Amino acid sequence: MKAGIIGGLGPQSTVDYYNRIITEYQKIKGIDDYPELIIESLNMTRILELINQENLDELAVQLLKSIKYLASSNAEVALIASNTPHMVFEKLNDNSPIPLISIVEETCKTCKNNNIHKVALLGTGFTMGSSFYQEVFSRAGIEIIIPERKEREHIHSTIFRELEHGIITENTKNSYLRIINRMVKEESIQGVILGCTELPLILKQDDSPVILFDTVEIHINRLIKELVK
Amino acid sequence: MKAGIIGGLGPQSTVDYYNRIITEYQKIKGIDDYPELIIESLNMTRILELINQENLDELAVQLLKSIKYLASSNAEVALIASNTPHMVFEKLNDNSPIPLISIVEETCKTCKNNNIHKVALLGTGFTMGSSFYQEVFSRAGIEIIIPERKEREHIHSTIFRELEHGIITENTKNSYLRIINRMVKEESIQGVILGCTELPLILKQDDSPVILFDTVEIHINRLIKELVK
Repeated sequence: MKAGIIGGLGPQSTVDYYNRIITEYQKIKGIDDYPELIIESLNMTRILELINQENLDELAVQLLKSIKYLASSNAEVALIASNTPHMVFEKLNDNSPIPLISIVEETCKTCKNNNIHKVALLGTGFTMGSSFYQEVFSRAGIEIIIPERKEREHIHSTIFRELEHGIITENTKNSYLRIINRMVKEESIQGVILGCTELPLILKQDDSPVILFDTVEIHINRLIKELVK
Repeated sequence: MKAGIIGGLGPQSTVDYYNRIITEYQKIKGIDDYPELIIESLNMTRILELINQENLDELAVQLLKSIKYLASSNAEVALIASNTPHMVFEKLNDNSPIPLISIVEETCKTCKNNNIHKVALLGTGFTMGSSFYQEVFSRAGIEIIIPERKEREHIHSTIFRELEHGIITENTKNSYLRIINRMVKEESIQGVILGCTELPLILKQDDSPVILFDTVEIHINRLIKELVK
């Protein structure tokens, strides 16, 4: 089975998906086997412009066009290698010619399996400020807690100024951990969703007082199950 | 303009192409601009089986199928991010719906511009043992020198056992440099073509007594010219 990936949002994360998909696939199928993939790498700036303008109809149109390219290139399943564009996932899923794997739905299942009732969401300002995580999680009876406004602004700006460019600093890492620690103390969160594909590059489980949900890892694990069927 | 890439041959090299295309593109267009790319990542083992079986007709059929996927996904130009499959380049070029950029032809132009008359070719056993580099270069009046049989076997096996898996050792690097030095002394080569996309990972210009032609760099530079038009 061939898988399609909508990538470029950003490129660092696309490389991370690509390498991890191959590694996880080979753990099951052996070092000499390789998955067949087709990756559509979009212009991140144009996609972010649509999100900034809240032009979600056009965002869905653009992403659906790419999904159709993947499908016409023989991909039988696809995913978007980025959290933020999942704000239009339902629209895409309704119109896609092939099954799509949602990073939000898969993360929700994993939280449920871990008996989580209250979980923090870190991600871009778009992801934390939208309701697409909340909608999926509330149906599963899980409460999503987002950081305070200033914390959200800090996380958003460091993702784009540092993580998207592969810049990982101890300073930014510690600032994220202070936010997590505050939410553990004040909000009694039981876990943290790393709801941006760049966040696992900086936040590791050993540093956190609560369980971290690596959405990329969860997303890839689900894809691998399809690919090795 | 959107570019198509046939990748996965191997994955390490595909990531290298992807990162370098974005970096070179942004050097011209600015850090906030991103090229639109579509990457078809093939199962390297299957492709190598066809090459091992000398089933070049089927190799061309498979690659052409992938090129057509890229074209139907709106790519207006494409390249194969690997030297070895260029053994069927002319057949692909004759049948492709979009222009293809040949790593061999572009390297030949670069050698000619550098006033090279005699150049060594390092690559996989397939690349060194085939005539597709020779054919293009002889038309330009440039003589291709390949290493001796034992040297070719050594280069081939270390490419697949080490470089394809990201393993870079001082030992293998020095063994390559001994081969280059012998060819400089005995064959009077004026340069060396790094005719495998993994070789620039281990051989650097500073280590070599003659000019190294990084075929990946040459290939990407030509693509960038198209993308920024």
